[in-house]
Amino acid sequence: MQLSTQNSFMASSRATRVLSLTRRPFSSSSLKFDAGVSMVQGASRGIGLEFVKQLLEKNDKGHVVATCRNPDASTGLAHLKHQFPDRLKLLPLDLTLETSIQASASSVKETYGHLNLLVNASGILSIPQVLQPETSLNKLEKSALMLTYEINAVGPILVIKHMWPLLKVGGGFGTERSTAVVASLSARVGSIGDNHLGGWHSYRSSKTALNQLSKTAAVEFARKKDPIVCILLHPGTVDTDLSKPFQKNVPKEKLFSKEFSVQKLLSIIDNVKSNDNGKFFAWDGQEIPW
Amino acid sequence: MQLSTQNSFMASSRATRVLSLTRRPFSSSSLKFDAGVSMVQGASRGIGLEFVKQLLEKNDKGHVVATCRNPDASTGLAHLKHQFPDRLKLLPLDLTLETSIQASASSVKETYGHLNLLVNASGILSIPQVLQPETSLNKLEKSALMLTYEINAVGPILVIKHMWPLLKVGGGFGTERSTAVVASLSARVGSIGDNHLGGWHSYRSSKTALNQLSKTAAVEFARKKDPIVCILLHPGTVDTDLSKPFQKNVPKEKLFSKEFSVQKLLSIIDNVKSNDNGKFFAWDGQEIPW
Ligand SMILES: NC(=O)c1ccc[n+]([C@@H]2O[C@H](COP(=O)([O-])OP(=O)(O)OC[C@H]3O[C@@H](n4cnc5c(N)ncnc54)[C@H](OP(=O)(O)O)[C@@H]3O)[C@@H](O)[C@H]2O)c1
Ligand SMILES: NC(=O)c1ccc[n+]([C@@H]2O[C@H](COP(=O)([O-])OP(=O)(O)OC[C@H]3O[C@@H](n4cnc5c(N)ncnc54)[C@H](OP(=O)(O)O)[C@@H]3O)[C@@H](O)[C@H]2O)c1
Repeated sequence: MQLSTQNSFMASSRATRVLSLTRRPFSSSSLKFDAGVSMVQGASRGIGLEFVKQLLEKNDKGHVVATCRNPDASTGLAHLKHQFPDRLKLLPLDLTLETSIQASASSVKETYGHLNLLVNASGILSIPQVLQPETSLNKLEKSALMLTYEINAVGPILVIKHMWPLLKVGGGFGTERSTAVVASLSARVGSIGDNHLGGWHSYRSSKTALNQLSKTAAVEFARKKDPIVCILLHPGTVDTDLSKPFQKNVPKEKLFSKEFSVQKLLSIIDNVKSNDNGKFFAWDGQEIPW
Repeated sequence: MQLSTQNSFMASSRATRVLSLTRRPFSSSSLKFDAGVSMVQGASRGIGLEFVKQLLEKNDKGHVVATCRNPDASTGLAHLKHQFPDRLKLLPLDLTLETSIQASASSVKETYGHLNLLVNASGILSIPQVLQPETSLNKLEKSALMLTYEINAVGPILVIKHMWPLLKVGGGFGTERSTAVVASLSARVGSIGDNHLGGWHSYRSSKTALNQLSKTAAVEFARKKDPIVCILLHPGTVDTDLSKPFQKNVPKEKLFSKEFSVQKLLSIIDNVKSNDNGKFFAWDGQEIPW
């Protein structure tokens, strides 16, 4: 359907004028964090944890906010906190509780005043005894479809919604980027055009929906001239808890380490251009069809 | 992610051998309905009701099963039932209750033994005081995202799941088609590639997910050599209750009548080819990008 939503956008565009479209002179609070503030959501383990590590190591003045359901339970984050006590902040955030997303946004605002990078790294594919990727249409369960959508699509877009005002500051000070970046971990199996194998209905559908939701946000950021680029990333098949039960048929050279995948993804993020806004990239920088 | 789901498919492919891949000699029960049995899901009003009407009028021996939440409350269906008492069967089906979908499948199986066409015509965009299409990311509500996904994506794929065994009979006897058809009403705004306006996050995302779920089913039908073609349809902007609140900016010549749109969609269905399986067509037969 092509009913025009143009007018409603126009009506609300005035609200954005209160925020600078080009970079403002630093305020005293942002001066303290002029090497950039990044947030990694879904940071307890796997790809998210590796993002936190590499962001802290790459930029020795950058600050990182790491969120996960239960920060106290992540030994990986505890280790990094010990190593980088002043530049790493841990916050609890459960994607199923919007109040926890809102509270994280308030806390980031109070401490740093802004965000230059948001990485949505969370995601679920299977949960022992609870959720299995479907091998046939026969096996589709409503509860699996709903749960996977809630965690993989709804959660990340609500995080973007609440962090949006903080990202309007634009690019990472100390980086070459003039724009802030929102990068959400999708998956190649979320591509409809590339779907030749079938199966994994709930996971596929949730990632496809995440792609559409991110694209829709990207369109609005562009319309409002917010200095934010919103992209989707496929990390390759990466050796983490998520892929563990499904690695049997993956050739060795196609199973990436977290270190390798996140290096590649960070290089995409660091080199992002304004016209990458709304696009979907694989780890090697190739665009993936919708 | 490209973890191979191939093996799991192979494991379950044996199950399909019990079903004939080419058309079987008619059983005595299917002989009675050899002009074809069609089911329209979401038939109380709008495009679905018009599908029922045209299917009954076009083929004077064809049988039609019309499902909706409350068949007794649809004056349109009551009128058609009066006109075509022997060829129209009304069944209650609420997309949010899988048991009601299952009960419809059992009832169709008992009465007709098979289905040659399934049209998923249901869908929600807005509900007064409950659900409004979003004009900005700011307005995203979790409840709206979840409800729209449940009705527009999960419901229709569960209907396909339960009707699948009945559709393995293949094409409508009395039609030129050698395959059965599953046609689900999507919407152009569900296309990610074609998303230039933004907004309507919940509705867009649910239709994009429906596209992925249908494509995934189509891949499995092809792998199992089931004589079923599964397609997605965009009806144009059609003058129904769904589009009513959003018609203000639609030029007159772009607002189609139900009659016109359904004629066009039925001509796509009647002329479907095997290699259309898994595709997304607009009312004029043009393919829509994902
Ligand atoms: N690994 C691959 O091969 C692969 C391939 C393609 C795409 N991806 C995508 O890449 C992303 C990262 O995957 P991964 O391999 O690193 O997975 P992982 O090791 O299983 O980690 C998943 C992360 O998501 C978090 N999470 C789950 N449910 C959550 C909730 N309700 N609230 C907040 N956080 C939640 C987990 O936190 P807890 O510790 O609290 O559970 C954990 O931090 C995912 O989006 C995944 O879909 C991965
Ligand atoms: N009209 C357009 O311009 C347009 C454009 C693009 C795509 N579409 C799509 O075309 C399809 C038909 O739209 P329409 O314009 O005919 O809409 P409509 O006139 O509003 O009719 C919607 C139908 O969906 C049914 N439905 C809603 N919730 C249901 C539930 N929980 N269980 C079972 N049925 C339910 C309604 O039944 P009740 O009577 O019980 O509510 C009704 O039969 C939808 O998928 C829509 O998204 C329409």
